[in-house]
Amino acid sequence: MRNPKYLKSLFEPRAIAFIGASNNPAKWGFNILHHIIKAGFAGPIYPVNPQGGTWFGRTIYKDLNEVPRPVDLAIIVVPGERVPDAMRECIGAGIQAVVIITAGFGEAGAEGKALEQEVLSIAQSAGVRFVGPNTMGVFSAYPSPVQALMTAQEFKAGAVAIVTQSGNLGTSISYRFLRRDIGISRLISSGNEADLTIEDYLDYLETDEKTKVICLYVEGVRHGRRFFETLRRLSDSKPVLLLKGGTGTVGADAAMSHTGALAGSFTLFRAMCRQANVILTDTVDEMIDVAGLLLSQPEVRGKRIGIVTQGGGWGVISADLCEAAGLEVPPLDVRVIEKLDTFLPAFWSRRNPVDLVAPGKVSMITDSVEALLQYMDLDAVLLLGMGYMTARARRWLESPVLPLDVMEQPARKMIAGEMQLLDLVVQQIKQFKKPIVPVIDLVGFDMEGEGNIVKHLDALGIMAYSSAEQAVRALTKAEDYYRKRREKSR
Amino acid sequence: MRNPKYLKSLFEPRAIAFIGASNNPAKWGFNILHHIIKAGFAGPIYPVNPQGGTWFGRTIYKDLNEVPRPVDLAIIVVPGERVPDAMRECIGAGIQAVVIITAGFGEAGAEGKALEQEVLSIAQSAGVRFVGPNTMGVFSAYPSPVQALMTAQEFKAGAVAIVTQSGNLGTSISYRFLRRDIGISRLISSGNEADLTIEDYLDYLETDEKTKVICLYVEGVRHGRRFFETLRRLSDSKPVLLLKGGTGTVGADAAMSHTGALAGSFTLFRAMCRQANVILTDTVDEMIDVAGLLLSQPEVRGKRIGIVTQGGGWGVISADLCEAAGLEVPPLDVRVIEKLDTFLPAFWSRRNPVDLVAPGKVSMITDSVEALLQYMDLDAVLLLGMGYMTARARRWLESPVLPLDVMEQPARKMIAGEMQLLDLVVQQIKQFKKPIVPVIDLVGFDMEGEGNIVKHLDALGIMAYSSAEQAVRALTKAEDYYRKRREKSR
Repeated sequence: MRNPKYLKSLFEPRAIAFIGASNNPAKWGFNILHHIIKAGFAGPIYPVNPQGGTWFGRTIYKDLNEVPRPVDLAIIVVPGERVPDAMRECIGAGIQAVVIITAGFGEAGAEGKALEQEVLSIAQSAGVRFVGPNTMGVFSAYPSPVQALMTAQEFKAGAVAIVTQSGNLGTSISYRFLRRDIGISRLISSGNEADLTIEDYLDYLETDEKTKVICLYVEGVRHGRRFFETLRRLSDSKPVLLLKGGTGTVGADAAMSHTGALAGSFTLFRAMCRQANVILTDTVDEMIDVAGLLLSQPEVRGKRIGIVTQGGGWGVISADLCEAAGLEVPPLDVRVIEKLDTFLPAFWSRRNPVDLVAPGKVSMITDSVEALLQYMDLDAVLLLGMGYMTARARRWLESPVLPLDVMEQPARKMIAGEMQLLDLVVQQIKQFKKPIVPVIDLVGFDMEGEGNIVKHLDALGIMAYSSAEQAVRALTKAEDYYRKRREKSR
Repeated sequence: MRNPKYLKSLFEPRAIAFIGASNNPAKWGFNILHHIIKAGFAGPIYPVNPQGGTWFGRTIYKDLNEVPRPVDLAIIVVPGERVPDAMRECIGAGIQAVVIITAGFGEAGAEGKALEQEVLSIAQSAGVRFVGPNTMGVFSAYPSPVQALMTAQEFKAGAVAIVTQSGNLGTSISYRFLRRDIGISRLISSGNEADLTIEDYLDYLETDEKTKVICLYVEGVRHGRRFFETLRRLSDSKPVLLLKGGTGTVGADAAMSHTGALAGSFTLFRAMCRQANVILTDTVDEMIDVAGLLLSQPEVRGKRIGIVTQGGGWGVISADLCEAAGLEVPPLDVRVIEKLDTFLPAFWSRRNPVDLVAPGKVSMITDSVEALLQYMDLDAVLLLGMGYMTARARRWLESPVLPLDVMEQPARKMIAGEMQLLDLVVQQIKQFKKPIVPVIDLVGFDMEGEGNIVKHLDALGIMAYSSAEQAVRALTKAEDYYRKRREKSR
């Protein structure tokens, strides 16, 4: 499917007009303009405000007519009553795509609804398409960053697209991805969807080569049939994760008041998602966990899980979690036991979970993983307990009790050993083409400076989980998605 | 109940002997000794090793008999076959309490079991009591820090006690508490429980004035009746949280191999916990979330929740979560609507969740909370969306696009405003004696320097949650605990 021109104008503009530029830091007319400039959009950015003046050295144009052409995209942040005129000016300037940030439309009573209808009519009369109103804005990473967004954070280009019917959920989701060094391809806060709806964005993302995984926050869909038909098609090539808002009665009412979306029956919605092989997630965090696995690991081809742990308790609760989630933790093949007997300490567990106790050498860890994947038909390995060697070595270096000259060498060696272990794990993932999922307690801990093994893994493109629960949940949902996709393609 | 002398010797020793001191950083004989010294134990610490020598300037005693007396506590890290002799030496030195770190006992086959029995007989012959073997060690904060523990992190004295049948789970739990600035009173890794068992530690914690909340990781109990009777009594005065390992069949087998504990039927165990008003948590993270609420907020006296949000979507999913958890999100009293109409922007939600949209002044947030708690019989308020003002202001200060001299004043003002908001929230918690629970997306984000509102709240003793899911889960479990406790005391 070819994408219409207005979507290209929206996501890949050559020039941007910003209508409602302001020098007041309390206003979106200041902040969103700041974000666009700061993110480094390669083409021209034209601030517009009837009062003219400058924005930190940039000319503010008094009138959109004064702005050089062509302009593909306009961002409108002026007060509601001035939006119809702003839209007319955009039409006059030959602009194809508009983002209306301004709130107080369809979500705000009869008057707002009438205003929204007026703006829609004006746009439709000229074939201009728009995002919003009442939107947090859009982000697009390619070919050049467009951060026309309320959110202040620094974006990174990547493969996750986010379409959200709530700006603040869009912020929550993108913050979490970016924190884990997972980049974003596009982010659309769809707002009131007076014109462009979630289905239009999905059409674009379907053929968007930059987007590998799609995350949706949905309160209610306006074109249910088109929505699920699109998803059914889309999920054959790209995983779609969906968090549903308004699943309860109070939440559904709140959603109605929030963006005017009718939440409808969640039972039905859920059934439709299952049919369309959409990955429903219960929380924002789960969305990040599942997407991270889909992006960073090979296909999960079954439910048989090997567990390799540096501590008994971690193995126990991980096995519990697998079993509760419907995954299997099969007994060890005798060849694995024989192999591990050759290099593990005498009192290793001799069962799956493979409890290495405190392994003397990091090679024991990767050799154990290798034996499991070599001799058994496993579908994934959970790798528990990394990070503590590095944490201990760092304590040595900081300790007022220990002389640095004595401790520096063993500490550096220990830190380097664990870093090397991570590189080996990444190699094994490629070699065996199976997920090896690290669970590292220290995810989320402030570990400044060297030896942050979570950041090292993030940089290697491998998602580490802070708890076995998150890893197992991600594996379970990914396995389900891939299985259904394989079954459908047969 | 008075606590026997050996428990006082264990948790409040006057002097510690460390048997198996080592200069090799790869050994526990090095690291645990390091942790004890570094943590700043106030009394004398006597390293012991037949080879003698020094440990970074400290004398290593060749024989425990050479060590000055009295010594209350001995930590044993020597190889298994030498533990019986070490125990005999402890008896000779008049030591009351011993921690046997060494592994390879009851968890390691028939030979290990025999060795364990031998050590037990020796100890029992003299009335010496011991922790372990096969333990990560113990931590005690009062009166002086005893960090006889494998874990390298820096401990902080506080009100949470942890008893764990897995050392690595103990590490996972304590790391998470300490990261949130929640201090620990005692931590016991109970190991194989050859002598002292979890029930003994519970007896001590029951009368321990420093301990307000107790967290347990349990794989199997040796004295089921005593265990649950203790808990039933204990939970009347102190909340007890419990994470169960070995709830599945593979996990139960692994637990058996791990510490020799028989996991038994989880269905029965769960029913017993309910009867004893023990708070069962599904994950380590949930344990921290619930304990944080119990420690930082007033009693949750019912299920009626007010939601105040700076973004629509956050309100929607929070209402969904409350409803799914069996909490109520009651409609607004008309007096609240009238009051909020006087200061909120025209298009506020006029419903619970109270969606402030983007509040112009921070006072709108606290004024809204006040109106809710003043005019309605609510049991708690969820406060969603803080932190983004500070995040934006910090971006201004870092921005290469904006001149610092222009932005510094508004940025400082905005950061100060949000900090002040937090102080007001803490005041309101005290004033209304009801939980006001902040949900802040930025929990867990590295925000170095000023303006980390999560760290500010942590320092104020208020737990902030990174997601509504976590906050709702904590509120739900806390409400259930308090309700049962009130019902029982009637």
